[in-house]
Parts: sequence; structure tokens; C-alpha cells
Amino acid sequence: MKKLQAGIIGFGTVGTGVYKVLQSHKEIEIKKIAVKNINKKRNIENIDTSLLTDNAFDIVNNPDIDVVIEVAGGVNPAFELLTTAINNGKHIVTANKELLAKRGNELFQLAKEKNVIILYEAAVAGGIPIIMPIKTILCANKISKIAAILNGTTNYILTKMHEQNLSYETALKQAQELGYAETDPTGDVEGFDAAYKIAVLSTISFNKKVSIDKIYREGITKITAHDIKAAEDLGYRIKLIALGQVLDDGSIDVRVHPMLVAKKHLLAKVNNATNSIMLKGYPVGELVLTGPGAGAEPTASSVVGDLLVLASELETSDKPLPQSICHHTEIANQIDIGDTYNEYYIAINASNNPGVIGLIGTVCGNNNINISTIMQKGINEDNTAEIVVITELSKESDVQNALKDLLKSEKIKNIDNLLRVMN
Amino acid sequence: MKKLQAGIIGFGTVGTGVYKVLQSHKEIEIKKIAVKNINKKRNIENIDTSLLTDNAFDIVNNPDIDVVIEVAGGVNPAFELLTTAINNGKHIVTANKELLAKRGNELFQLAKEKNVIILYEAAVAGGIPIIMPIKTILCANKISKIAAILNGTTNYILTKMHEQNLSYETALKQAQELGYAETDPTGDVEGFDAAYKIAVLSTISFNKKVSIDKIYREGITKITAHDIKAAEDLGYRIKLIALGQVLDDGSIDVRVHPMLVAKKHLLAKVNNATNSIMLKGYPVGELVLTGPGAGAEPTASSVVGDLLVLASELETSDKPLPQSICHHTEIANQIDIGDTYNEYYIAINASNNPGVIGLIGTVCGNNNINISTIMQKGINEDNTAEIVVITELSKESDVQNALKDLLKSEKIKNIDNLLRVMN
Repeated sequence: MKKLQAGIIGFGTVGTGVYKVLQSHKEIEIKKIAVKNINKKRNIENIDTSLLTDNAFDIVNNPDIDVVIEVAGGVNPAFELLTTAINNGKHIVTANKELLAKRGNELFQLAKEKNVIILYEAAVAGGIPIIMPIKTILCANKISKIAAILNGTTNYILTKMHEQNLSYETALKQAQELGYAETDPTGDVEGFDAAYKIAVLSTISFNKKVSIDKIYREGITKITAHDIKAAEDLGYRIKLIALGQVLDDGSIDVRVHPMLVAKKHLLAKVNNATNSIMLKGYPVGELVLTGPGAGAEPTASSVVGDLLVLASELETSDKPLPQSICHHTEIANQIDIGDTYNEYYIAINASNNPGVIGLIGTVCGNNNINISTIMQKGINEDNTAEIVVITELSKESDVQNALKDLLKSEKIKNIDNLLRVMN
Repeated sequence: MKKLQAGIIGFGTVGTGVYKVLQSHKEIEIKKIAVKNINKKRNIENIDTSLLTDNAFDIVNNPDIDVVIEVAGGVNPAFELLTTAINNGKHIVTANKELLAKRGNELFQLAKEKNVIILYEAAVAGGIPIIMPIKTILCANKISKIAAILNGTTNYILTKMHEQNLSYETALKQAQELGYAETDPTGDVEGFDAAYKIAVLSTISFNKKVSIDKIYREGITKITAHDIKAAEDLGYRIKLIALGQVLDDGSIDVRVHPMLVAKKHLLAKVNNATNSIMLKGYPVGELVLTGPGAGAEPTASSVVGDLLVLASELETSDKPLPQSICHHTEIANQIDIGDTYNEYYIAINASNNPGVIGLIGTVCGNNNINISTIMQKGINEDNTAEIVVITELSKESDVQNALKDLLKSEKIKNIDNLLRVMN
């Protein structure tokens, strides 16, 4: 097999994981590693410090290097570094979902012009094989739907809320103490990370460029212990779901938000930091791929897998793999959240009054919403009642109108939450 | 993309599925289809009857054909047909697990000599992407264990036994009526089909030739409604598990038998005809891939996926893919079932006598077996008791000795079942 000379940009958890795994794969030789601080003490044995540089341009401009492994993350300076590398004829293996979601199309266009390959298995769902399978063995399929748990941090937090009846705040704090959540958890808990990943995954699944700016995104910060309890009672688990689907008219519905997932659904059974991807296509039917979505070792499995495939391909051919050409000229027609159809969970705080159920029923009916379940979940000390409604399939804009109408009544004190439901 | 000329051998469920799916993939042109009976009425529209032949050698000797799609099954005449095809320089896409398990090594050796590619994604787990991922994106991994549900028929039967408290005989009959089981169900219910598949999967996972003759195989025909009930009560589901694992000394343990799988395990949640593969490797950790294991369309997804990858590869190179070279020179050192270690479920019919529990405990202890649970499950009309034992990790030969010792006592009427346990 052709021996590839590689440079690593970024030497945090993933970068050191890749370095360690490459010690037993001598087809790939590490020539240079770009770090933020050369003098930092590192938890890695026998690292040759002469490999380290604090200038990543030493890598992307190095004529000896065939492939750049970018595991630093973020758009800047990664975009400039990778465009320089591509212009210099280097292949790219990256785990950078944010960069791919925001500027992937420019990178893939440039890679096509320069006849180099960009591989990025590690950018979505860590160690789970999904990008390469979609581009190779599943390529006979017309993929119509992806529903996935793509963020381990939020899945961990939601699992603990379910299992230990914790509030969101307490579960987040525990996740931070255990290293599952960062000090600033925004990227995870507000759904940005999952949105980048579903943007990348939807683009290759539907063969149309999905714009990150048009993805509806809602995090898990408003989920309460009350919602968790109600979901359990109704036979659901709350999960942060990244969804992408092709509608009958060819438009594309891509979004990230929490959902009540029926307990019998395989996605409801995926706990802690594990990721899972449900994919529906023709002719394959429904697949569910589950595994570790983050961490040094699983991510290194995907990065090194990409490197070994690259080495193997370059052994037999100098031309890039057709599978690696990811420039999608067609732009997806992404629909607005208001135009989506869902079943809904609505948590309502209302005055404890027999007319309230009738009011909710009437307002829903006036807005074309059929109710499938309505439950009073208890009386509060202030003599208000907690009411939970599950609707049949309804249009989001109708539901939003119904909530506005409900709040016009003095009997309705608050809409505590609105979540979508997956059966 | 290079247009490939293909011939199909076998035009049953899978063959017609492949034909239909290829109608929308014009990179592959069907030149010839070998059938058993040309005049048979077929449930397929607009088939060009001039494509049909009842002589499969018309395909393997046809100079216009680049790739032979073999979906007929069985060792003969498939082996002769495919060796002829390979000798004629044709690539092979096959779904034939029995052929690969029994004579794969000869085929791969010949393919290597003749510089052609054999792809066989459809041979294991139907539409689930597993063969190509192991050979490509997961190739950085040292795979140490596979535990899988690889036979849809038996999983369907066991699911119905659990859900509807059916006997094996009744569940089998229903499965036959619904087309999930064949009139002669032996290949499925005795574990032959699963054994072929785990032989293929273990060989590529562990990079050593696994011999089908050395795979311990036990089917589901002895599972009773009593076992199902006891398993449920203890928190398990009974599944036919195909297992392959590398032991610390490098020897390989490959077998197929029913197991009590803890309900929290993802494999316990895979129901009906669905297949699922749990794979453990370093660095990836644990993956679970779930999906349709059979049927015309899922199988066609894998066959046509192989064909499109082949077409794409031949576009950029005339040399075969390194990933497709599956000739394993090293022979796996497969251990005997007697040398394996497992937790066990033992169902015992004994006289209803207070000394019985003590007897069982003593005999187990004398044979190095620690009991973790012992339960009396009820008294029969003949004043015998049904006793269920769950052991800690024990050596199979010790357990077999203990069962012999137990049967020496008049108090023990029968060993109703011995099953292994997966927690």
C-alpha cells in the first residue's frame, strides 16, 4: 500500500487519539502536528516533539505532505488552512462538521477543481459508519428520511433526567462534572452541533445542498422534569432529534428539536452519550445504526478509516474516487418550520376549571387540530392545573395560532412547552 | 461512469428485485438472465423475454458480460458457474452465503489470480451495510467480537413465541403461512443459514479463515413456551445469536445457538424478521447495526450497491480494489464448544422434594459452577417441579458434566433445556 505522509492540525482529544491509533497503521506517516502551544504538557507517550509546530501553515504548505488531517474544529482559521492545502494539491480528512455545514460547498468545489479528495466520516456520529456507506454500498438507494440522535451531550443529559428525575440544570451540572458537557454548553444544548451534522448528512443523503441557515433549531434547555414525567406516563422518551426528510413535492424538511419518541421506537432505546441514525430509503427500507458519537477512540476509528481508504485508493489510481465528489449543484428547497406537519405535545398551565378542557378542545378544533389525548396531570397550590395535550398530525402554523388563541383566554395561564412527537 | 454488462443467475425473489432496482440505474445493463424454467409466468412487468436463458453457462461464458450476479444460492452448480466466470475474467457479485462459507476461500484465491473482484454485501444481513464498512471505513479496527441476529425467520418465530405465548410448533406454522418460513424450515430453524453468515462475517472481521465445519450450531426447535416464560420472568428475551469472538490467546470462538439476551441489550429489542449486528472493536468501541435481513428490496439494495461500487471503481482503475481481496491465508484456530465459557440457563424437571435444590447446588459446586439464581417455577400434576438455574460464568464442559451428574440422581427427572445467557 502507498505510504501517505500526513500532517495533523489540532492536537486535542481527537488529534491525540488519531496519533495513537496511527502508531499501529504504518501506511500513514505523521510528518507534522500543528498545536496551539508547543510547550504544553501532553498526556501522550513518546511523542517526537520535533513533529510539533504552532504554525499550521507549515503543514498546508509543506510539499512533503500528501494529506491534511484537520481535527481542530471551527470555521476560522480552518477554512483558510484547508483551501490553502487543497490549492497545494493535498487531500483532506476532517472531523469539522461546522466547517462542512457552513462552507463545505466551497471546499468541495475547490477539491473538484484541484482533483483532490475530502473525506469526513468523523464529522457525523463519531465512530458510526454512515458517510462512506451512504456514498458507497447504499448508493442504489433513494434516501427519503433520516431521524437521528447526533449529539451525545444532550442525549446524556436527557437520559439522566429520565432515569433519575433530575431537572435540566442538575443533569447539565452532572454532565459537566463528568466531562460530557463543556463549561459553555451552548453548542450542544442549543442544538448547533446536531444542526451542523444533519446539514452534512442531509446533503449527501438527498443529493442537494442543504443550507445550515434554513435549518430550524431548538435545544433542550426548556425541557422540564414535568415534561419528562408526562412523556414517561404517555409512553415516550424525550430525545433531541435531528430530522431530515424529502417531502412528496421534492422539498426538504430539515430541523433539530427535542421530540417525544415512542418507547417502542429503537431511537427511544438509545441512552447516555450514544448516537443513533435511523435511515429510510428505497430499496433498503429502514436501517438503524447505533454507536459512540464522540470520544478520542471512536472518532479516531473514522479518521484513520478515511486515511486507510484514501491510501488504498491512491494505490490503484491517481484519479479521485467518484464517491468523494460531494459538490452538489442543486440547492435543496428547504421548507419553513411553520409549513411542517407533526404530532404535538402541548403542556398547558390553566386555571382549575371544568370549562378549560372544553376551551382547549374548541380552540384546537377552530385551528384544524385534532386532539388524540388530553390529560390533567395535577393541581398546583395556586389552584392551577397542569394539562397535557397530544395532537394528531397538524400543521405547525395552525398549532402556533392555536397557542396564541389559547393565551387570549384568562383561563389559560401559560403554555409551558410545545414539543413534537415521533411514533 | 463505466457502463457494466451484467448477467443474472437466479431469478427468484432476489433476482427479480435486483432486476427491478436496476431499471433506475442505467450504469448496469442486464444482458442475460439465467432461469430454471423459461416459460414460467413471472410477476414482473415488461421483462424482455429474449434476455432469459435456461443455461447459466450462457452467462459465465458470454464474452460481452463483465460481471455475474449470482443470486441462485446453493453450492452446486454455483461453484462451477462462478469459477468458470472468474476464469473468464468476470467480476462477481453474489448473495450466496452457503457457497462463500463452504468454498469461499477457493473462489477468492482464484479471483486474486485472475485479478477480478468478488463482492457479497447481500450474503450477510440483507440490506444492512456490514461487509463493505468492515473492509473500508472500519478497517483501522481490530474487531474482537460480533454478536448478531442474522436469521429473520427464527427471530420472527421467537418474537411471536414471546409476544403471543405460542409454542414453537404454532409459531413456526404461522411463520410458514405468512411466508416468513419455508415449507422445509431446516436451513433456518436449525441454524445453518446463520452459521454460513457468521462464518463469512467472522472471516473478514478477524482476518482469518473460519471453517464452517468447526462452528458449533444449535437451532431453536427445542425452545419451549416454558423457556420463553422463564426467560421473560428473569428479564431476558430468547434470540438465535450468531457469535464470533477472538479470545485472549488469539483463538477464535464462533458458534450459533439460542441465547437468553438481557432485555436492556439492544439485540433483545430487535423483533420480527429484523436482523442486527453488534460489533466490538478497537478503537471504535461498540456498534449496533439493525435493519432488514432479507426480502427482495433490501437484498437488491446490497447487490446493486456492490454493482455501482464496482462500476465506479472500474471507472478509475483496472486494478482490483485492495478491499476486495478476501483470501485469508491464516487459518483461524477455532475452539470447541466444550472449551467456551458462558453463563447458562438450565431448565430442570425434578421431583418436588426439598432436597432437590441442595442436590443441584452441590452438583454444580462439585463441577466448578457458581449459581447466580435458582428458581422453582411451579409444580406439575405428577408432583414434579420445574426448576430454573442461572449460572455465573462457567466452562461448557463443566456444565455438561454437571448435567450428567444430575441425571444420575433419581430426584432429577429430566434436563429440559440448556441455553446460554448474554447480559
